[in-house]
Amino acid sequence: MARTAGSHSETTGPRVQEAALRLFARQGFAAVSMRQIAAEVGVQAGALYNYTPDKQSLLFDLMRGHMDALLAERAARGAGGDAVSRLEEFTRFHIRFHLARPDAVFVSYMELRNLSPENFAVIEGLRRSYEDELEGILRDGVAAGQFDVADTKIATLAVIAMLTGVTTWYREAGRLSVTEVETIYWDMVRKAVAA
Amino acid sequence: MARTAGSHSETTGPRVQEAALRLFARQGFAAVSMRQIAAEVGVQAGALYNYTPDKQSLLFDLMRGHMDALLAERAARGAGGDAVSRLEEFTRFHIRFHLARPDAVFVSYMELRNLSPENFAVIEGLRRSYEDELEGILRDGVAAGQFDVADTKIATLAVIAMLTGVTTWYREAGRLSVTEVETIYWDMVRKAVAA
Repeated sequence: MARTAGSHSETTGPRVQEAALRLFARQGFAAVSMRQIAAEVGVQAGALYNYTPDKQSLLFDLMRGHMDALLAERAARGAGGDAVSRLEEFTRFHIRFHLARPDAVFVSYMELRNLSPENFAVIEGLRRSYEDELEGILRDGVAAGQFDVADTKIATLAVIAMLTGVTTWYREAGRLSVTEVETIYWDMVRKAVAA
Repeated sequence: MARTAGSHSETTGPRVQEAALRLFARQGFAAVSMRQIAAEVGVQAGALYNYTPDKQSLLFDLMRGHMDALLAERAARGAGGDAVSRLEEFTRFHIRFHLARPDAVFVSYMELRNLSPENFAVIEGLRRSYEDELEGILRDGVAAGQFDVADTKIATLAVIAMLTGVTTWYREAGRLSVTEVETIYWDMVRKAVAA
């Protein structure tokens, strides 16, 4: 029995996260109860508290997990090349990473308002780290005379908003592959910041 | 009494809309009850049904009102000048219009999932009309040799996402005026689609 319970708990943790993400994306954080999440996972409501202390922690863990995965993938890539090639790599990476996680992207944007102030500060810090990487690329390109950007901070936010917007309209069954989409956006980003 | 009730109903209708918008933006459509909206307006829950048949209608009216206002302002502006000057005017207009209505922008994006299929189709049609105006400007610029855009439909969605993103970070008390923000974005849009 103990072994079975143990092996259940290893798979139930991620299933709780997935169920919460799915329900938050579909109905919104405030409308979803712990009871509903338990039902979606197929466990008793009381058993859910073995995996998470409360709904706020679930939301925070989802949003932090999303940002941690994003930053870990960036860190694993290194930062070789000049500003133009780094910006191209960043652009293509951003589109691919976010297109693979539309629910997490939607919840991460929409539910910022429902984070506690301490949790909000943590997520904001992680987002800032990600934005700082792009802003660093833009600054390097300006310093090298490759880019001409009036305001590197605003250009950073503009590029990220433009690229993340892909998640609102892209459909796998549509007329364009992810690589084609990346190439179209890269062409616009490259020109938008060009010297 | 009848006169008082009459004059109340003229002001209560807009107040119901404003209360619903505020609550939907703060808590999400699914989490807000008609009873809460009534309490926010300061009327009995039953009296709310004099102004709206149900919560779905309230949401739809908010989103349609937002799009109607957007399209009415565009129609009032006419479309003089070449593609470059029309694109600049569109860019500056889009930022100003959306910065003035952050709650409506947030709800319009976030609550698309909660519209009934028929209501969703109507809102989608209105959004399409707005996008079509921008795509028309891009097409005219390409035809005139002023713009070079790989895909006018995607460029349209990219520009709108980039510009609307301003609503997520702009603060009136910040370091930039709306006009300065417009100018920075116009510089990036102009270059992004330039021939």
